[in-house]
Amino acid sequence: MDYETPQFFRVMQYAARADRDVVDMVSGNPDWDPPEGVRDGLRDYAEADADAFQYAPSRGLKSLREEIAARRGVDVSRVVVTNGAGEANHLAMTGGMDHFPGDEILLTDPVYPYYAGRASFLDAETTIVSVDEDGHLDPDAVRAAASEETSVVVVNSPNNPTGAVYGADAMAEFVAIAEEYDALLVSDEVYDHFDYAGRFTSALEQDSPNVVATNSFSKSMAITGFRVGYAVFPSPDGPAGDLVDRAGTRHMLTNVSGSRPAQYAVERALRTTSPEYYAKCRRRLERRIDTFCGALDAAGAEYNRPEGGFYVMARFPEFAGSFANVYELIDDAGVAGMPGEAFGESRSDWIRFALVTPRIEEAAERLAAFFE
Amino acid sequence: MDYETPQFFRVMQYAARADRDVVDMVSGNPDWDPPEGVRDGLRDYAEADADAFQYAPSRGLKSLREEIAARRGVDVSRVVVTNGAGEANHLAMTGGMDHFPGDEILLTDPVYPYYAGRASFLDAETTIVSVDEDGHLDPDAVRAAASEETSVVVVNSPNNPTGAVYGADAMAEFVAIAEEYDALLVSDEVYDHFDYAGRFTSALEQDSPNVVATNSFSKSMAITGFRVGYAVFPSPDGPAGDLVDRAGTRHMLTNVSGSRPAQYAVERALRTTSPEYYAKCRRRLERRIDTFCGALDAAGAEYNRPEGGFYVMARFPEFAGSFANVYELIDDAGVAGMPGEAFGESRSDWIRFALVTPRIEEAAERLAAFFE
Repeated sequence: MDYETPQFFRVMQYAARADRDVVDMVSGNPDWDPPEGVRDGLRDYAEADADAFQYAPSRGLKSLREEIAARRGVDVSRVVVTNGAGEANHLAMTGGMDHFPGDEILLTDPVYPYYAGRASFLDAETTIVSVDEDGHLDPDAVRAAASEETSVVVVNSPNNPTGAVYGADAMAEFVAIAEEYDALLVSDEVYDHFDYAGRFTSALEQDSPNVVATNSFSKSMAITGFRVGYAVFPSPDGPAGDLVDRAGTRHMLTNVSGSRPAQYAVERALRTTSPEYYAKCRRRLERRIDTFCGALDAAGAEYNRPEGGFYVMARFPEFAGSFANVYELIDDAGVAGMPGEAFGESRSDWIRFALVTPRIEEAAERLAAFFE
Repeated sequence: MDYETPQFFRVMQYAARADRDVVDMVSGNPDWDPPEGVRDGLRDYAEADADAFQYAPSRGLKSLREEIAARRGVDVSRVVVTNGAGEANHLAMTGGMDHFPGDEILLTDPVYPYYAGRASFLDAETTIVSVDEDGHLDPDAVRAAASEETSVVVVNSPNNPTGAVYGADAMAEFVAIAEEYDALLVSDEVYDHFDYAGRFTSALEQDSPNVVATNSFSKSMAITGFRVGYAVFPSPDGPAGDLVDRAGTRHMLTNVSGSRPAQYAVERALRTTSPEYYAKCRRRLERRIDTFCGALDAAGAEYNRPEGGFYVMARFPEFAGSFANVYELIDDAGVAGMPGEAFGESRSDWIRFALVTPRIEEAAERLAAFFE
């Protein structure tokens, strides 16, 4: 699988060219409004003095870093504001490869394709651990796959694409495994606000020099286009204290700094958005999960009901998760999902549907009718 | 010299802690207003529908890429919108190292420290070509330094820090040298709007597969904090046709995409800003150059009168361009510049002053009085 060519675009382009109406359940772009604080932040920024239009500090606006640090309960020296979780993961993975021994990155299957693309881009050996049938990652399987060669372990909870949320015990185990094998656990927690079962635990709960937590406001504030994310590195005073400076240097030499109007708007929204905004987003998605899973039942599909995140993976009877079948669904059912084979081998019989469209009911009806 | 630790910050921090008023002539942040189109773009964006807040295409908003391509007279397939010229240079330099034979990056001395930092970060061999006394880069010196080992040649015109603008003949020669040695010429043209002598020539004037031109709107629109830049790569159909896709992949795996509100505002301003805005910025800087060079004359300093850009380098009698002397100027004259030694060896007797403060007259008087 060539992860460097985004398969998302192939499917989206096919759907766009289809000779019929198609419900897009391919990409992970929220379809709801950002918090008003984001818009207010941009409105105010538009009237700011000239000096507000100049470079933000390379590691992010001070007020934004402080707000993030306070919310995550860490010292501000550990926080680097990045160009979205994408850059946060890039910095964490490259830093882990540089600092810790070994040339191997341990990923799960199914895998979010950007992780695999980055690993291949970094010329890392990639070892794959398949998740359970229910989408969970078994710490014993991770331990069995880890070795002296393991430099970085990447986990993602709530998970894209399976919808699994790893519990506190599992996260503690992943951290312990990273410590055991002198490796870095990169914990991508970008869907942390979308936790329907109350199971989510941040890797930062473990006070470990072997953990980097990555996150962004792309999903929680419905602003994937803003590119404001962050990574929390081990304390600069601890045994992996060089990680935050390595990341700061790489960030500076790659990007100089992040985009300031976007950081400004996010900082405003962080301070002004009530918990009700996030709760409402969760309730909206829970309703969509109910509707969509009902249709999957009607279609005779197997699926893991999402514990978190935006996605449902489903396996239909005698209908593999191939590009050919996904194209057939687009043409004949008018629903576009992502073929499971784009996420690795273990879920090549499955199809992933993103619940970020207001047309879930229509999609559900179309799928139920198609598989009837 | 450790280029990875930005020397700018050392000096700025020293100036900020000084026990007196200091005119900041250290950083390259414009002190004037961005075009109104930038503010209008943000105002409109703040009211946009939810879908405008989601991912821009990885290589940039289509309308922005098209506008850039039209202005540069190139096909849109050659344009990648980046996180400022910083990322454009990063992509160009890494792509050049990957595609062209050799492990060497050829830089000028004095050098913009980010180029040297990037070269060292990429583990490239660095070969340095000193500029002439008048700040110009002699093509013969570049040719003499180039070899089979040369993979990338970086030039910057109008130049930071010397203020030199390389003419059409010199640019044609640099391109020819890159072709001769199977290398990539990276031409950083970020100060192209600040050309006082009408000498500026883009490397794109030469239709060559060995050229990447980089640029941004940071300086021309006084928005260094927005991080919107671009690189124009060789045609994808030509002999170095892989460069644009390599850069697109690296950009995607590092940053996913650039910040959309910033791209939106820049696109608006590109379409709505009259030539008079740029002309006014030039006239403002020309007045500052006159004032400041007058003071340098009074101080008995040698200097190159800038043909372009924001900076003046000056050499004062018996007062080297060291950090110690720059700190003395801060404490005793109340003017902060950058020590020439931060830019390499050939200008270690010089000090660079950035003309991006409204207090040029005051700085000029203080310097003249100090060196009287």
